[in-house]
Amino acid sequence: MATARILSTGDELVRGRSLDTNTSEIARALSGEGVSCEGAEVVADDLPALVDAIRRACATADFVVLSGGLGPTEDDCTRAAAAAAAGVAIERVPELAAALEERFARRGIPMPPSNLLQADRPAGAETLPNRHGTAPGFAMAIGRGRFLALPGPPNEMRGVLAEEALPRIRAFLAAAGGPRRVVRTRSLETWGEREAAVGEKIADLMRRGRMPRVGTTAARGTIRILVHAEGDPADVDALLASDEAEIRRRLGPAVFGADGETIEDVAARALLASGRTLAVAESCTGGMIGALLTGTPGISASFLGGVIAYANEAKVRDLGVDAALLARVGAVSEEVARAMASGVRARTGADIGIGITGVAGPGGGSEEKPVGSVHLALDDRGAVTHRRLALPGDRALVREIAAKSALDLLRRSLGR
Amino acid sequence: MATARILSTGDELVRGRSLDTNTSEIARALSGEGVSCEGAEVVADDLPALVDAIRRACATADFVVLSGGLGPTEDDCTRAAAAAAAGVAIERVPELAAALEERFARRGIPMPPSNLLQADRPAGAETLPNRHGTAPGFAMAIGRGRFLALPGPPNEMRGVLAEEALPRIRAFLAAAGGPRRVVRTRSLETWGEREAAVGEKIADLMRRGRMPRVGTTAARGTIRILVHAEGDPADVDALLASDEAEIRRRLGPAVFGADGETIEDVAARALLASGRTLAVAESCTGGMIGALLTGTPGISASFLGGVIAYANEAKVRDLGVDAALLARVGAVSEEVARAMASGVRARTGADIGIGITGVAGPGGGSEEKPVGSVHLALDDRGAVTHRRLALPGDRALVREIAAKSALDLLRRSLGR
Repeated sequence: MATARILSTGDELVRGRSLDTNTSEIARALSGEGVSCEGAEVVADDLPALVDAIRRACATADFVVLSGGLGPTEDDCTRAAAAAAAGVAIERVPELAAALEERFARRGIPMPPSNLLQADRPAGAETLPNRHGTAPGFAMAIGRGRFLALPGPPNEMRGVLAEEALPRIRAFLAAAGGPRRVVRTRSLETWGEREAAVGEKIADLMRRGRMPRVGTTAARGTIRILVHAEGDPADVDALLASDEAEIRRRLGPAVFGADGETIEDVAARALLASGRTLAVAESCTGGMIGALLTGTPGISASFLGGVIAYANEAKVRDLGVDAALLARVGAVSEEVARAMASGVRARTGADIGIGITGVAGPGGGSEEKPVGSVHLALDDRGAVTHRRLALPGDRALVREIAAKSALDLLRRSLGR
Repeated sequence: MATARILSTGDELVRGRSLDTNTSEIARALSGEGVSCEGAEVVADDLPALVDAIRRACATADFVVLSGGLGPTEDDCTRAAAAAAAGVAIERVPELAAALEERFARRGIPMPPSNLLQADRPAGAETLPNRHGTAPGFAMAIGRGRFLALPGPPNEMRGVLAEEALPRIRAFLAAAGGPRRVVRTRSLETWGEREAAVGEKIADLMRRGRMPRVGTTAARGTIRILVHAEGDPADVDALLASDEAEIRRRLGPAVFGADGETIEDVAARALLASGRTLAVAESCTGGMIGALLTGTPGISASFLGGVIAYANEAKVRDLGVDAALLARVGAVSEEVARAMASGVRARTGADIGIGITGVAGPGGGSEEKPVGSVHLALDDRGAVTHRRLALPGDRALVREIAAKSALDLLRRSLGR
């Protein structure tokens, strides 16, 4: 299988003033062509460092795709670095110089002489025309690799990648013959099991060296299982489908979606599909469940609204929670969560009511009810389900995971 | 000047499935300490590749900061790679194992045995405690560099970087002595003026070649003005303070905060400082104003809660909006926004009521009330302010800017 390494250059990237989004886009595009990305590097606008990075990358990868450093200023050293890495001279290309001059003439502004730097090219390189800006890219052989230089501004990079670089990579792979190999990835999104517990259930699938390659990542409560397979397109699809089926079998309802679906979208779609109506009674989440659900267009067909019962008086007045009960068991309790869920249902006439109350922190915790204690209840036409959560993390994370746990309970209760 | 290299590890980053934001954050934080970042690399979950990258980075930089690969699964190989790069063994740290076990015991759930991987550490390394998750980081000498490993999830990385890694880097720099040259950035956050209008008011400060360097960026309604200066710490601080004063003078109340403060935090703090109480009545934002405000700890002293009045029936039943008025002028109207603000105030007894109603899209727009039409009202003890917004963007952006515009109105009405 063909391999690639990705380079990006620019002091602003190295210093953290700009976020490098090109690397991620290029890696995804190459995967789609069956080229496996092995690593990426961000290099300062520094000639020796760039020469070294290009040489190292071209010594091990079939394709090296670099973005940045093609502009008209002194610190744009990609042309010089590629020439040095290949051991060739820099030459000025008359057609490129003429095109630059014409471009400026057409806009009626004088061309700064430094712009002519953009007409330079390592000897023997092929130009990759740029219809989205003034700096063209180029492609050439360096070491064992094909080196492709693209402009740095994301919109220009994207254009030259799609129009010029990928077609050349495709042609190169076709000319190299042999069966075409692709890398494809399927991700399964799970909620409700810890990463380590998920990992144990699929430990044999995650074994090093196995194909497909299976890994997990965790982000704010969602545990994602990534399945990568490489090979012949038909085989790859079969391998992914087989692993997906096995993972779904082992993890059951913890799997809520695939390929980046969110728990809020899945819950909202499940609610719409059920035809039932919902109202929420939120304390510690302060409106977040409603805010997440209403991100889905058309949700007004099922979501009636609800009450943000942040103060205890609101729980009594708006949700009919018994004041004596509140005083006896406290606002963060199973009883109050149940009363909130049933209260908002009664108040709004919704089929389903959700109640949530908890200690988001950083203050307000006690030995009995530490920060992260959350009670969650769902009343579906009189049948009440309750969950007690003990959530890790800071206030923002406790609140987000609490709200999404409510949405997880909702989609599970609707059989999704 | 001290130098750094940054590494991040994870197949999902190399393949472009997740965007690496840690590198950029770490680079900025190091700049603030006077450490110059020379380059960054993204490495797959592959032990030999990671060992090689760590060795190369530690051969040239004073500090090497890596994020990722510290989780509890087989593909988390940062601990093993650092040990191999340094030529030391891996050891299990009894205190870390005990802390992990206690953490799970406290939450009343059994610990998956694989979690114990997170109690491993290269021999001779120092633990960097992680109060935001289960995987601690570590620090050790490798080659000529100080190597610091941080967890991969951005919120955990951020916490361990600020609380554990930066103090150690500072102490190390102080011990090394010598004059310090720093790069510092001050950002001023504005709301309510377009980026081009902000740019025109400070065009002379943004001139190329001027020091400090001043630029603007726009993200989801907040226009940020960045002021960068480099040099001797005392000079840099004076330059930044002088530009900040000038920018605040020119932009007036559009500046709501500095250095990444959010409109929701500023509004929540202004509310708390005012001693007044607030309730919200949200239609198109579905609870987002409440969710944003309640992100601030202690807000329960001022925020009573409110009503998510997504359905028209809720506006009538829970907020006392006149049904005939609703039928006549429609839900998205100045009159209904005003009635919602006053209704939720009357219902809850709050000093201030906020009402918001709009067309978030993508459906539901008309010629008279296109997608992005939002009416916002604030009733402060009987004095009602109204704003009509015509917002660009998709559903998510319209909702977010609508909610934050309500918070902007709140902080301005409180004189902040």
